[in-house]
Amino acid sequence: MSKGLPKRSEDYSLWYNELVKRADLAENSAVRGCMVIKPYGYSIWEKMQAQLDKMFKETGHTNAYFPLFIPKSFLSKEASHVEGFAKECAVVTHYRLKNAEDGSGVIVDPEAKLEEELIVRPTSETVIWSTYKNWIQSYRDLPLLVNQWANVVRWEMRTRLFLRTSEFLWQEGHTAHATAKEAMDETIQMMNVYAQFAEEYMAVPVVKGRKTENERFAGADDTLCIEAMMQDGKALQAGTSHFLGQNFAKAFDVKFATKEGGLEYVWGTSWGVSTRLMGALIMAHSDDNGLLLPPKLAPIQVVIVPIYRGEAELEMISVKAKEIMSDLRKVGVSVKYDDRDTQKPGWKFAEYELKGVPVRIALGPRDLENGTIEIARRDNLSKETFDLSSQPIAEKISGLLEEIQQGIYKKAFDFRASVTTEVNSWEEFQQVLEEKGGFISAHWDGTSETEEKIKELTKATIRCIPLDRKEETGKCVLTGKPSQGRVYFAKAY
Amino acid sequence: MSKGLPKRSEDYSLWYNELVKRADLAENSAVRGCMVIKPYGYSIWEKMQAQLDKMFKETGHTNAYFPLFIPKSFLSKEASHVEGFAKECAVVTHYRLKNAEDGSGVIVDPEAKLEEELIVRPTSETVIWSTYKNWIQSYRDLPLLVNQWANVVRWEMRTRLFLRTSEFLWQEGHTAHATAKEAMDETIQMMNVYAQFAEEYMAVPVVKGRKTENERFAGADDTLCIEAMMQDGKALQAGTSHFLGQNFAKAFDVKFATKEGGLEYVWGTSWGVSTRLMGALIMAHSDDNGLLLPPKLAPIQVVIVPIYRGEAELEMISVKAKEIMSDLRKVGVSVKYDDRDTQKPGWKFAEYELKGVPVRIALGPRDLENGTIEIARRDNLSKETFDLSSQPIAEKISGLLEEIQQGIYKKAFDFRASVTTEVNSWEEFQQVLEEKGGFISAHWDGTSETEEKIKELTKATIRCIPLDRKEETGKCVLTGKPSQGRVYFAKAY
Repeated sequence: MSKGLPKRSEDYSLWYNELVKRADLAENSAVRGCMVIKPYGYSIWEKMQAQLDKMFKETGHTNAYFPLFIPKSFLSKEASHVEGFAKECAVVTHYRLKNAEDGSGVIVDPEAKLEEELIVRPTSETVIWSTYKNWIQSYRDLPLLVNQWANVVRWEMRTRLFLRTSEFLWQEGHTAHATAKEAMDETIQMMNVYAQFAEEYMAVPVVKGRKTENERFAGADDTLCIEAMMQDGKALQAGTSHFLGQNFAKAFDVKFATKEGGLEYVWGTSWGVSTRLMGALIMAHSDDNGLLLPPKLAPIQVVIVPIYRGEAELEMISVKAKEIMSDLRKVGVSVKYDDRDTQKPGWKFAEYELKGVPVRIALGPRDLENGTIEIARRDNLSKETFDLSSQPIAEKISGLLEEIQQGIYKKAFDFRASVTTEVNSWEEFQQVLEEKGGFISAHWDGTSETEEKIKELTKATIRCIPLDRKEETGKCVLTGKPSQGRVYFAKAY
Repeated sequence: MSKGLPKRSEDYSLWYNELVKRADLAENSAVRGCMVIKPYGYSIWEKMQAQLDKMFKETGHTNAYFPLFIPKSFLSKEASHVEGFAKECAVVTHYRLKNAEDGSGVIVDPEAKLEEELIVRPTSETVIWSTYKNWIQSYRDLPLLVNQWANVVRWEMRTRLFLRTSEFLWQEGHTAHATAKEAMDETIQMMNVYAQFAEEYMAVPVVKGRKTENERFAGADDTLCIEAMMQDGKALQAGTSHFLGQNFAKAFDVKFATKEGGLEYVWGTSWGVSTRLMGALIMAHSDDNGLLLPPKLAPIQVVIVPIYRGEAELEMISVKAKEIMSDLRKVGVSVKYDDRDTQKPGWKFAEYELKGVPVRIALGPRDLENGTIEIARRDNLSKETFDLSSQPIAEKISGLLEEIQQGIYKKAFDFRASVTTEVNSWEEFQQVLEEKGGFISAHWDGTSETEEKIKELTKATIRCIPLDRKEETGKCVLTGKPSQGRVYFAKAY
């Protein structure tokens, strides 16, 4: 039934790669490191986009679009920013091809060399702040709350579908404010929006936290994040929200006239989530049968499969199926009726399991006689025979979808709890990391040196300093030096 | 009131540029030829996207995403395709920057040269057909109906906001079919979708036609198009739909097993519209007061401006305004209440005129007493005092928006009719083109030579061979040679 999918427990990495391809989510393209997002995968991304976009608009943001290219000199204007991105960027140097004179084909025209090289945006702070300089003169122009949906490129040497690709899709919010407090409030607000989206829509519980200085965005004074836990015990950074201080305002000389008549640098934030979320969604819930989608993000929430022999039976079943479809659509449930005659029901069942459709309804001639349908849940693979006269079908299915949504979340929550461990010694740290993985809550002395040493020794990084951590003094798990509180370590994607 | 906008009649080109900037639609960026689409402009594009996307989905298409980069060798696989795009493309040659050893800043790392240069997609036929090779094996995999929303780059030397920019946003449909007929039907269907969108939503009448061989898409066997007429008498190609024959299937070796057990090359189409449509929308309707938006694409359909002195008056007016807002929102009208105290009503009136908001409602203390509001139309600048007890406000405004939508279309239609001229001599051709511009319907001998000659002499091109042209033999307007029917000439954007 699993269409030969490798077992998750045997080879998590292979399982993931095969699942992504076979469930028609994405595949590698002919262009190194760039993926093709296939129609089914893209339709899930569209659901994510629609919900996030709604949440951004509800919090006062509007969309805009800025250039794909960034002049090389722009990137250099913010010192730590260029440090962070220069090593992995696609550089445009020419603007024309021509036919080789020896007839060997098309070559780059050496006469069409750009005066200044252009970088394909790895992120847009620089080009956006150079624009904001023209948009912001006075406090009346603030706050400026803009978001962009775009593709970005970071030249990755080791890529993985959705998780790490040279080109990816994302949204990047870029806001400008009159005060540090307003900017920090925005930074926190957007982290909360991401957390709400992850938990309520993706059904993925997240830890809200602060990055250490080491892990901060290149150009930020502070980076907040949400960290999720995958089923193999590795963490995944699912979204970040940066307090940029006045760094980019200073780099691009963006000042505003204050209410009091002064002139000050503007305060900034930026925040983003990307098609990485697709990777998180897949890895957080799916199993050996394939994808498992939370109903709120499933492009098809219910599939109806007719079980029939011959045209006459199909016709009768179709009447009932369409009645059910119509009832479900009225309450906003997305439903597909798969009456293809090229595939058998068993094949279809496996197909929709693989694609993570939350609910499957099967309907045969016996069901018609009895006034029943068979309802199968993707999450726990249970089946029930449902008496159509016992409850309106729309009510039944809506309730079930809600139950599944919550069930998936609870399962992920419980799993995370089961792999989150407080440790108090270096021995324990290594043992837990080795045997169980997950989040390790441990004391840390607060130095980059120790953080790097631990990474070197174990590949575990500090995922975040949880925002809700208890006040607790202790001793650093590696150095024994004093610590002000626990942080979360994990191996991570 | 026009905020110093140049007069359309005096300098059309300057008027357009200034309007685009002052109405917050777009502006030039620091990157040559690339524009920034500002929040208000982008919100109109989002309305366009949403409607087009709906129409694409209703005709069976799904979205997907393909790589931004195209290997140089791919572009060369279809001979006329590379001819068409090689001369204006952005070429990525390196994947890293580094610090210059002399401390002069960041430079391209010569050691990070790509083995094969990558082209930033000017259009995606090549990368998509290289993917389709893996997706298509049998007739069961057809038709494949895919669309992509994306940015593309064509290196333009002379750019103009929305109309011609080095980077632009668009959608590109790419479909694969088992037969030439099916592919041709799709090509026609999508041209019709575009025409319907232009006329019903943008309120821009279009001529549906076929491009001459000269003007065909590079790689197509046939190009259908919709051509719109701007207020300065110049035409604008608003959308194209290409019948690709088997050209890309052959270039990328995409064959399918037929029902009958044979093996054949797949038939293809591609079709696209871009942010150029924004230019068409602006130029087709706007006037000396600014933008004029058809209600169906207006992000704000109604704005309510309170006329008040002091807080107490504002409070009373706000109660009524919010009642009206609520009534309008219930019927799906988008409405904004502008109670900012930083600007005077007159300033606001001019602002919303500039931004093309279709309906403005003003509401003062006298209105409250009398149970009236003032309704002003953006299209004809007329005002009326409306008695709120005479008709439900939602009904009144809905009707008015519909009337405005139709009125704008009719005006554009009548204008186009007034600048569409049948001419029968070369003298007349030149005179009409010079004095009136617009579409010139004339006989043409069918040769590329004559077409080019006319372009050379007058700058007018054959916009299209109208699909609905009458059967009519005649003599070519330039050469006097026999012609099978009239074609549309015009100067064009």
